Amino acid sequence: MEKKAAIVGGGVIGGGWAARFALMGWQVRVFDPDPDAPRKVNQVLENARASLPAVIDAPLPPEGEVIFSGTMSEAVAGARWIQESVPERLELKQTLYQRLQSHCGEDAIIGSSTSGFKPSDLQAISHRADQIIVAHPFVPVYLLPAVEIVGSAANPPETLDRAEEILRGIGMFPLRLAKEIDAHIADRLLEAVWREALWLVKDGIATTEDIDNAIRMGFGLRWAQMGLFETYRLGGGEAGMRHFLHQFGPALQWPWTKLTDVPDLDDELIDTIASQSDAQSGAHEISELERIRDGNLVAILKALKGQGWGAGQVLKEQDARLRGEDA
Amino acid sequence: MEKKAAIVGGGVIGGGWAARFALMGWQVRVFDPDPDAPRKVNQVLENARASLPAVIDAPLPPEGEVIFSGTMSEAVAGARWIQESVPERLELKQTLYQRLQSHCGEDAIIGSSTSGFKPSDLQAISHRADQIIVAHPFVPVYLLPAVEIVGSAANPPETLDRAEEILRGIGMFPLRLAKEIDAHIADRLLEAVWREALWLVKDGIATTEDIDNAIRMGFGLRWAQMGLFETYRLGGGEAGMRHFLHQFGPALQWPWTKLTDVPDLDDELIDTIASQSDAQSGAHEISELERIRDGNLVAILKALKGQGWGAGQVLKEQDARLRGEDA
Repeated sequence: MEKKAAIVGGGVIGGGWAARFALMGWQVRVFDPDPDAPRKVNQVLENARASLPAVIDAPLPPEGEVIFSGTMSEAVAGARWIQESVPERLELKQTLYQRLQSHCGEDAIIGSSTSGFKPSDLQAISHRADQIIVAHPFVPVYLLPAVEIVGSAANPPETLDRAEEILRGIGMFPLRLAKEIDAHIADRLLEAVWREALWLVKDGIATTEDIDNAIRMGFGLRWAQMGLFETYRLGGGEAGMRHFLHQFGPALQWPWTKLTDVPDLDDELIDTIASQSDAQSGAHEISELERIRDGNLVAILKALKGQGWGAGQVLKEQDARLRGEDA
Repeated sequence: MEKKAAIVGGGVIGGGWAARFALMGWQVRVFDPDPDAPRKVNQVLENARASLPAVIDAPLPPEGEVIFSGTMSEAVAGARWIQESVPERLELKQTLYQRLQSHCGEDAIIGSSTSGFKPSDLQAISHRADQIIVAHPFVPVYLLPAVEIVGSAANPPETLDRAEEILRGIGMFPLRLAKEIDAHIADRLLEAVWREALWLVKDGIATTEDIDNAIRMGFGLRWAQMGLFETYRLGGGEAGMRHFLHQFGPALQWPWTKLTDVPDLDDELIDTIASQSDAQSGAHEISELERIRDGNLVAILKALKGQGWGAGQVLKEQDARLRGEDA
């Protein structure tokens, strides 16, 4: 089957999808009525071309063409994968699927980049709910392998299997959820951290820079290679996970009450965060920070590839696939 | 002043402190009544010798001797830095300081590895509260640079300055909190993630392995180099942090109610987690996982050093200090 993808919504996330598909040899059509979308997508494409090839050792396929379509019907016609990355408004997404489903094939997969909605929400008003799934990636989409795959009862398991296969083919690591849930896995964890971080700033305990340093000089380094549970398993030492849990358990009952409240993100807190963030990162333009981030991620991914571990193992499997050593 | 450190409590954390001080040329005395402590500490020392030198390019000082003391008074006598890493029981820590303060110098710094208690709690029954501070590190202590420094009103700022200077001298990155708070910065964030992860496992949404993969294939890679806020600043694109906050804000009001409850860590949930963790990581012995983790961290730290960013920048500064290029 022809490798044709349609990208609906051309921001940082849609652009990242376009870049990943194109660099892995897919023809890509992008639809976004924003006249500024081509510039934004081309910027992401340039970032991807400057970074993704550096972590791949096998010969890359010829880059697929990226075409900006004037209409959504033109973009989705004949596409095998359609990725929707429009703003997080449920009605917008639902009506968009209705429109695009009158132009796309019945066996195309429609993946949504939604970070919050469940597939059954997205499918609610569709007559072909079976082809709509959640495929939630992480920025930068062209470098980070994780993608959360979520279906509802309306999706045949074969559709989700096929989705996984296609995404593995473009170098991603599909994480299939056993059940649908608001915000999937990662954004539930991120939301929890975010709330707590807001309290720390609001209460004047730490600045945005302090919090970022606490992460990237400490547990963030651990989490690039082992996650929460495997790390804690090590924390239990020779006595293992059960011992760790018995030790840790009582701490969950401590009155760290801020964890259970939602801070009010009012103008004052927004001002505080925005100005602390300027003090922390304002010396670099956003485009420069993106290049720094991508350079760091490439270096970390190559390091993990040398170790044959975690995201590095995913890259090795991608090499094997590109060399035709693996189905 | 002589570089003498005393380590009270010789588990994974105390052992990590002993290793960092010794490898940076300090004489170390360890006190722990557990007859198994020397074996545990020597194991950590071996892991540290096999990893820390690989991320340092400057000549290392001759390794300091690590001596196991039979009494606490012997261990702390003449020490410039005393690090307490005993179990998280407040009364135990408080009475321990009373005992050791009758044998240590008045200008020694007593750092506690506590992940939860505030310095004012630790100081409550002491007649020399001014020398007791929180110095909370991250496992593996010999590789991760972050250390949270927290004082109370009883600590003169000069004591905290001196603590920072000593810790920088052994290659750490001190993070000084503006105010004391239960669980400091990092463990508040970790606790929030932990609670949410427990719900995901309990509700059958994801296994421990899924959650770890969602972290290490996605945002964990980002957090090894930029933290939460700098990453989100990029998420706002050219419009910046303020734009991001206005977009993100409403999501905080969504009814992700699990975030605000504490799951009951009962036997059933402990069984589930322990057996999922066995399925995920059981193929490796703990000591093997430690070597894998350290190998990965060394590779990541070297990668970041090549980029001159984050933890890599801390290592470059440590090189300069070891070469005498920096005070």
